[in-house]
Amino acid sequence: MTSTHSPVRRGRPGYDREQLLQVCVQVFNEHGYDATSMGKLAEELGITKSAIYHHVASKEELLELALNRALDALEAEYQRVQDQKLDAVDQLEAVLRGTVRVLVEQMPYVTLLLRLRGNSEVEMAALQRRRQFTRQLGELITRAQEDGQIRQDVSAVAAPRLLLGMVNSLVDWYRPTTIGSADVVADTVAKIALDGLRGPTDSR
Amino acid sequence: MTSTHSPVRRGRPGYDREQLLQVCVQVFNEHGYDATSMGKLAEELGITKSAIYHHVASKEELLELALNRALDALEAEYQRVQDQKLDAVDQLEAVLRGTVRVLVEQMPYVTLLLRLRGNSEVEMAALQRRRQFTRQLGELITRAQEDGQIRQDVSAVAAPRLLLGMVNSLVDWYRPTTIGSADVVADTVAKIALDGLRGPTDSR
Repeated sequence: MTSTHSPVRRGRPGYDREQLLQVCVQVFNEHGYDATSMGKLAEELGITKSAIYHHVASKEELLELALNRALDALEAEYQRVQDQKLDAVDQLEAVLRGTVRVLVEQMPYVTLLLRLRGNSEVEMAALQRRRQFTRQLGELITRAQEDGQIRQDVSAVAAPRLLLGMVNSLVDWYRPTTIGSADVVADTVAKIALDGLRGPTDSR
Repeated sequence: MTSTHSPVRRGRPGYDREQLLQVCVQVFNEHGYDATSMGKLAEELGITKSAIYHHVASKEELLELALNRALDALEAEYQRVQDQKLDAVDQLEAVLRGTVRVLVEQMPYVTLLLRLRGNSEVEMAALQRRRQFTRQLGELITRAQEDGQIRQDVSAVAAPRLLLGMVNSLVDWYRPTTIGSADVVADTVAKIALDGLRGPTDSR
């Protein structure tokens, strides 16, 4: 495979913006965003720094693109569920399933998002969107409680954080070969979150 | 407060080994273990490097002490529950509650543990003990399934990881002032894990 427009070393092809982002996110996740310089990225990509600057203005633009990918996907899931006119408890289940799907499909981007500490404006803005998502899940829980569809005796502050903690942990241990598809994991998450390990009541 | 035996700068007191460990773990969590040098630790402690070497042989010994603190506490909870001759499902609940308690009580140490990537023998050994703990939780789930106490249709591979993911997320968001005591969180975790948001069946 050859390329006619990008500097190529060690036989590697040129990158379009999408491929560039993909490799950079992988490097960020491996070495940490802060610890990764543009020089390091160029080295890993096998291209020059100016070839990277052909696609993006800065390392931070790469971060922003990556975080937007994760957050746009999560927010789209929430919006998709909103548009379906479901009961609150069914919305809750659908959002949890959607979150699992996004995590599995966009895992490198979500991994990067989950490891942020808010060290810059871009990171702060991303954390703000993450908090908004958590808040929306909490609102669904409150509505489902008000509708009598779920138990009243769990905190609508702690519960969404615990549920997202459960789902987010996927980035640390999910492997399709040992764990199964996103749908299989989404089923397990939905079972535990809604009916617990003891299982559903007979009356449902 | 004065000290007669340790070098003190900027009016800070000398440290015993316990206090030293406490501050160092805080610095590791803030800046990352790999990114923290002994010089940085000395600076944060307000003492000389040789004053640190009076207590420990290396930065890695500090890491090992910290990780042992977290892992010893988790393993002690598991052992304590084993000694109680409970049904598997009650053991499962007790271990989850104990894990919440350890996380809240030993939060800086567990935070350090959870962020490890296995970059050295000390880290690899700690990750090995973490995996063993996950495996033991998985075995409790399998036994509770065999005893007919919990549903059969959740994976004993995914379920312990999801449950620990739920509990471990505490290090990212738990604040006693907004969330309540360890016991309150342990109740919420036990409710979700065992009976889910829909709540227990009437027949129990």
